[in-house]
Amino acid sequence: MSGIKVKEPVITLTSGPAAAYPRVLQAMSKPVQYDYDPYFQAFYEEVARKTAKAMRVDEPALLIHAEPAVGIEATAACLIGRDDVVLNLASGVYGKGFGYWAVRYCKELVEIEVPYNEAIDPEAVDAAMSERPDIKVVSVVHHDTPSGTVNPLNEIGRIVRDHDGLLIVDAVSSFGGMDVHPGDCMADVFITGPGKCLGGPPGVTIMAVSDRAWDQMAANQDGPTASILSLTDWKDAWSKDHAFPFTPSVSEVNGLDAVIDNYLEEGPETVWARHDLTARACRAGVKAMGLELWAAREEIAAPTTTAVKVPDGFEDKEIRATARELYGVVFSAGRAETDGKLIRIGHMGPTAEPIYAVVAISALGGALRKLGHNADVNAGLEATMDVIAAAHA
Amino acid sequence: MSGIKVKEPVITLTSGPAAAYPRVLQAMSKPVQYDYDPYFQAFYEEVARKTAKAMRVDEPALLIHAEPAVGIEATAACLIGRDDVVLNLASGVYGKGFGYWAVRYCKELVEIEVPYNEAIDPEAVDAAMSERPDIKVVSVVHHDTPSGTVNPLNEIGRIVRDHDGLLIVDAVSSFGGMDVHPGDCMADVFITGPGKCLGGPPGVTIMAVSDRAWDQMAANQDGPTASILSLTDWKDAWSKDHAFPFTPSVSEVNGLDAVIDNYLEEGPETVWARHDLTARACRAGVKAMGLELWAAREEIAAPTTTAVKVPDGFEDKEIRATARELYGVVFSAGRAETDGKLIRIGHMGPTAEPIYAVVAISALGGALRKLGHNADVNAGLEATMDVIAAAHA
Amino acid sequence: MSGIKVKEPVITLTSGPAAAYPRVLQAMSKPVQYDYDPYFQAFYEEVARKTAKAMRVDEPALLIHAEPAVGIEATAACLIGRDDVVLNLASGVYGKGFGYWAVRYCKELVEIEVPYNEAIDPEAVDAAMSERPDIKVVSVVHHDTPSGTVNPLNEIGRIVRDHDGLLIVDAVSSFGGMDVHPGDCMADVFITGPGKCLGGPPGVTIMAVSDRAWDQMAANQDGPTASILSLTDWKDAWSKDHAFPFTPSVSEVNGLDAVIDNYLEEGPETVWARHDLTARACRAGVKAMGLELWAAREEIAAPTTTAVKVPDGFEDKEIRATARELYGVVFSAGRAETDGKLIRIGHMGPTAEPIYAVVAISALGGALRKLGHNADVNAGLEATMDVIAAAHA
Amino acid sequence: MSGIKVKEPVITLTSGPAAAYPRVLQAMSKPVQYDYDPYFQAFYEEVARKTAKAMRVDEPALLIHAEPAVGIEATAACLIGRDDVVLNLASGVYGKGFGYWAVRYCKELVEIEVPYNEAIDPEAVDAAMSERPDIKVVSVVHHDTPSGTVNPLNEIGRIVRDHDGLLIVDAVSSFGGMDVHPGDCMADVFITGPGKCLGGPPGVTIMAVSDRAWDQMAANQDGPTASILSLTDWKDAWSKDHAFPFTPSVSEVNGLDAVIDNYLEEGPETVWARHDLTARACRAGVKAMGLELWAAREEIAAPTTTAVKVPDGFEDKEIRATARELYGVVFSAGRAETDGKLIRIGHMGPTAEPIYAVVAISALGGALRKLGHNADVNAGLEATMDVIAAAHA
Repeated sequence: MSGIKVKEPVITLTSGPAAAYPRVLQAMSKPVQYDYDPYFQAFYEEVARKTAKAMRVDEPALLIHAEPAVGIEATAACLIGRDDVVLNLASGVYGKGFGYWAVRYCKELVEIEVPYNEAIDPEAVDAAMSERPDIKVVSVVHHDTPSGTVNPLNEIGRIVRDHDGLLIVDAVSSFGGMDVHPGDCMADVFITGPGKCLGGPPGVTIMAVSDRAWDQMAANQDGPTASILSLTDWKDAWSKDHAFPFTPSVSEVNGLDAVIDNYLEEGPETVWARHDLTARACRAGVKAMGLELWAAREEIAAPTTTAVKVPDGFEDKEIRATARELYGVVFSAGRAETDGKLIRIGHMGPTAEPIYAVVAISALGGALRKLGHNADVNAGLEATMDVIAAAHA
Repeated sequence: MSGIKVKEPVITLTSGPAAAYPRVLQAMSKPVQYDYDPYFQAFYEEVARKTAKAMRVDEPALLIHAEPAVGIEATAACLIGRDDVVLNLASGVYGKGFGYWAVRYCKELVEIEVPYNEAIDPEAVDAAMSERPDIKVVSVVHHDTPSGTVNPLNEIGRIVRDHDGLLIVDAVSSFGGMDVHPGDCMADVFITGPGKCLGGPPGVTIMAVSDRAWDQMAANQDGPTASILSLTDWKDAWSKDHAFPFTPSVSEVNGLDAVIDNYLEEGPETVWARHDLTARACRAGVKAMGLELWAAREEIAAPTTTAVKVPDGFEDKEIRATARELYGVVFSAGRAETDGKLIRIGHMGPTAEPIYAVVAISALGGALRKLGHNADVNAGLEATMDVIAAAHA
Repeated sequence: MSGIKVKEPVITLTSGPAAAYPRVLQAMSKPVQYDYDPYFQAFYEEVARKTAKAMRVDEPALLIHAEPAVGIEATAACLIGRDDVVLNLASGVYGKGFGYWAVRYCKELVEIEVPYNEAIDPEAVDAAMSERPDIKVVSVVHHDTPSGTVNPLNEIGRIVRDHDGLLIVDAVSSFGGMDVHPGDCMADVFITGPGKCLGGPPGVTIMAVSDRAWDQMAANQDGPTASILSLTDWKDAWSKDHAFPFTPSVSEVNGLDAVIDNYLEEGPETVWARHDLTARACRAGVKAMGLELWAAREEIAAPTTTAVKVPDGFEDKEIRATARELYGVVFSAGRAETDGKLIRIGHMGPTAEPIYAVVAISALGGALRKLGHNADVNAGLEATMDVIAAAHA
Repeated sequence: MSGIKVKEPVITLTSGPAAAYPRVLQAMSKPVQYDYDPYFQAFYEEVARKTAKAMRVDEPALLIHAEPAVGIEATAACLIGRDDVVLNLASGVYGKGFGYWAVRYCKELVEIEVPYNEAIDPEAVDAAMSERPDIKVVSVVHHDTPSGTVNPLNEIGRIVRDHDGLLIVDAVSSFGGMDVHPGDCMADVFITGPGKCLGGPPGVTIMAVSDRAWDQMAANQDGPTASILSLTDWKDAWSKDHAFPFTPSVSEVNGLDAVIDNYLEEGPETVWARHDLTARACRAGVKAMGLELWAAREEIAAPTTTAVKVPDGFEDKEIRATARELYGVVFSAGRAETDGKLIRIGHMGPTAEPIYAVVAISALGGALRKLGHNADVNAGLEATMDVIAAAHA
């Protein structure tokens, strides 16, 4: 069928695009319907409503028909006006990256930046906002994927609201894998997608937008319309009474439908628990092998990604290539500033299962050993398996 | 599984999103691979190369991971500099629409607009470019879908090149259904997608960009980067030696792979021939029924969409709803200026088969008759079937 | 991908294997589970129970893992003892065929045979059973597919029960397309499958077996065990407390699951209604075209298949080949004694939609006209469309 | 969608039904075609021919449309005449089982039975056939799945041929996972299927039948016809010039098509090598953990299944249930005489990958440890990983 000489991977343990659930893959092969057909319109509304239910908000979810980074870029474009002061919280590559979008649109960018293995201190946010009461928009990444670290989102959200700021939350790689919801963190714009912890296709953005944020966007005279960067174009598109501004990605919506059914039927708490257990088992194995977590403190290590420091004297590319060659197991590289410094083991959707912690430790440890590193794989696997066993005590 | 009360359509004969081939639907359920995995990188390159082969260009196709309107908007953003004069050719809603994007970026917009049931006269283009030698960029829609009409693209392309203009071609709803290629029309930016005549999912853009256009984009200091609107971000993304700027829509690429295999294996000439035959049979039926084609002249009626004037005294919505209720057949409405004035019967991909001309005439005629119109369905079907039979003489 | 030179059909209007619903095709790609895994065992039981619900019986359905003809052959092997007198009701090729299986096992075969365009007269059954009170087993085909005719099943069933006979019902090509259930016809063994009117894959048998029949089988010392022909092997296989005697066809069960969900969610009455309407519209068209129905009387024409007499001087093969060549539409041939004498238009599952009556009349009429027959296609289509319109009056 | 409370397994490492390749699952969702349509007939022939190519025989493969046990039962029914002496070689439950089918049809059954952890000695076959020159048919199971042991097939085949016997080979769970072909073992009837090492659906049988065997079947007056147990019914069914005797299981054929493409494109030698490596790694781990292989000698342990003795004092059910609960990993139980005595780890198709040896050892060892057994999981995993690493030295 194809001339590709590279073998397909056996097990993909990445931080996204991540493996999708079989049920979602089946749904991707649903017929492509005409967007204005009444069936599709009812279906689209249903998907928007059930996605909202998953996010625990009332209004139908806003869907943007491209990967979530587009939803984030569009948020910057729509929400930030030329007179706005933006506080950007940067604890990693993605957090820092939002600042580059924000400066295109804002009057002034204020930034709190911490080392990329650290988390934002809510008190620093409080201090910054007290010092600069003109801060209007605050942006934070919940799980800064290239670092595998999470920020104390709900605390930050409370502070931002206390200062009457509008909060943009990038929860792309945390929602669906842990207990995070727009309401709890008081997000005004909450951005996620099905391609990470929800075990779905990566080409669509899921959003929840507060009335405050819609009002701000409506008031922003520089906000784009008739553009992929316009959120307002799509505000009411879930309703059959409003036209789609552009063509929705029908197949991605088909996938999203199954993604949400899957999540709600298994039960969010159950889903989060297996993400948490898998990550804990994995971190225990990493440490017991004699490797170091990238996160400065284990409390801020994400339950959806375990980032491991590349040991001195070793190349991350070589380690990943060896794990793939020996075991067919694929890990994520770092990205930008973290590229080369860490290896990321994703615990997302269907791979958020304890056995994949065993797989990860074996493949990572086995690769390192193959390359001459004295990783104590035995100790690693024992620690991993102990965590799993303890969960069934 | 769902609480949707609306029945799914039986046969979708629309101008997009259009029905996808079974083979493509199967491919949509391929596993979601990690974008940086060597297998996916080889796969992505292969898809980009085979898509180029389908477009009959040498360089791997440029893929933009959102529906083709985004590729068009991005082209405006990247190619048109603040000092550029743009000639926009508007023979329909989509052609006109490009002008709204162009004015965001250009110094001056010159427009040739014809009635939306007409086509652009190449001589008018020649005249305009002779009069305004400072015109740098020309934009044309090949098949203006909301009108079902095609422009004389190759002639226009020759003229634009003679005047040394850069030509943007929107071939979204013609490529794959008729003989149109970037080389033949001398397009500098050629934009299409799998969701129309190729019978695939609508969420990705296929493009071919000339060296002249890449040079212009590189020289355009206002061109976006780090944005969904940046084409340059993705220029070399097909190569495993270049990083993806953002996450590709993996499942859409899986679908595109099958789309192109399907097209090349059946043989482009064979594919075009069945689009042409189906459209001819359909137009014959429309006319014989006593209805009028929207197109001012049959020569400019698209082989991929037959637009039919809504008869006086009837409502397009009611006609479409009746066709759906009685027959389960779905047609496209018009759009913007053509909304309410015409009904569009798509001949795209798997529905570009003569039997669907019969289906279309039956459902359209039957609906009209049901609503009290004296459409001569018998004559329509006879004419349609005669065209089909004649093709097998 | 393949070197096959024959083009795939566009629309398949056959009496089985018939086109499957998209939803069922998606379900066919569910992972293959281990048959003894608790998940699969629970799933299997659920499928058996919901299939029973569709048949309106209490006990979980009996599944035999091969196409329904195997279920019928196995019924003959298991139910008919060497001392049994069997009354076989033959109104067609399939009815007649059961006799060949019955004689392998019975003491004596009594047969009521009518012309293959006729139906069994219940009074004849009553007479035969009165005359031969030693008749123990009676077999009848509800819809004798090669003839497209249905027998008065419920009346026959009442008579058989009055005479205390055991009734075998082949409802393979009627169940799911019309109102037929084991209880209503007092079947002791009721055999059907997902591959016809239910719009599913053809490789599995669905059965309902009465306690009386199970008792008879248990008492039959010649009945097979440890064999594909043994029903008793599988009697309790739905229960996780019983081992599977052989390997179930996991993917077919996956398909069956979706088949039944689809049927129950749409609503049996709704499903039957569209089979009925499509068949009526089709028959009206056939007659108006000047062709003859195969069935001696329209009352016995099946709502799931319209059998049309091949006009004198024409070859059925040529007609079918022409319909396929011109329109891509595939019809069923006859079978054995009816082969060459009729053409069958299936109205099954997803093709039991009125528009496919239009398609059938067009393709059949168009093919005949192409071959020189003076079929009045116009009149045919008008009659077909009138029936459809009248249903929405 | 369903009310099933049991969670789906995470990783299925069974001896069949075994996990299917994603590509095969996609193919299962191909449209269901009418069996007499020219496209399907060409497709069926192509599948039969490519399956023959995989078996390295010239004649198109014989397909029987039920799981392979049916192909075996049918072979007994068709090949064994009432005057035939059959030598049955029983090294396990499946080998023994064939004898029960053989005695139904033969004059006399001669059996060589060895303990079910042993293999047949070719010299014993030679001795038996020398002693009883009237032995006409010999039957052997290559890989007796319930024991995980393989017989020296090619040596046995040579001896049987030297004695002019007809050889029946059950290669259901070895073909596709190791180097076994009808020609090499001089099989007259060679039976396998896609549901084990080929990574496909379990509901169809693949066979290669020699001319000698066809002659014997033709001469067998007791051989079934018009029956699921008839091989001769299907002898020429691959050819469009012969009718299908019954309905083929279209979806299973769709799956088989992908199964064979997959096998031939990857390359049989490559496929066998990963089965072999995975099994060796697994056996090393089992032994290093302090457990015992079921096979009396490692040379006869199958590369497609590793059978492990259940340690004294432990229950196999409990071990398997614990592995499933803690890790979501599913193993096969034994069957009949081996039930309760061993646990089987399948290495078949997509699970014949070294990482699954790691998964198996972890899950088996972890389960045992959880239950109080002092399995040395560390040593086991180390041994497993050493074998894998050595393969990449």
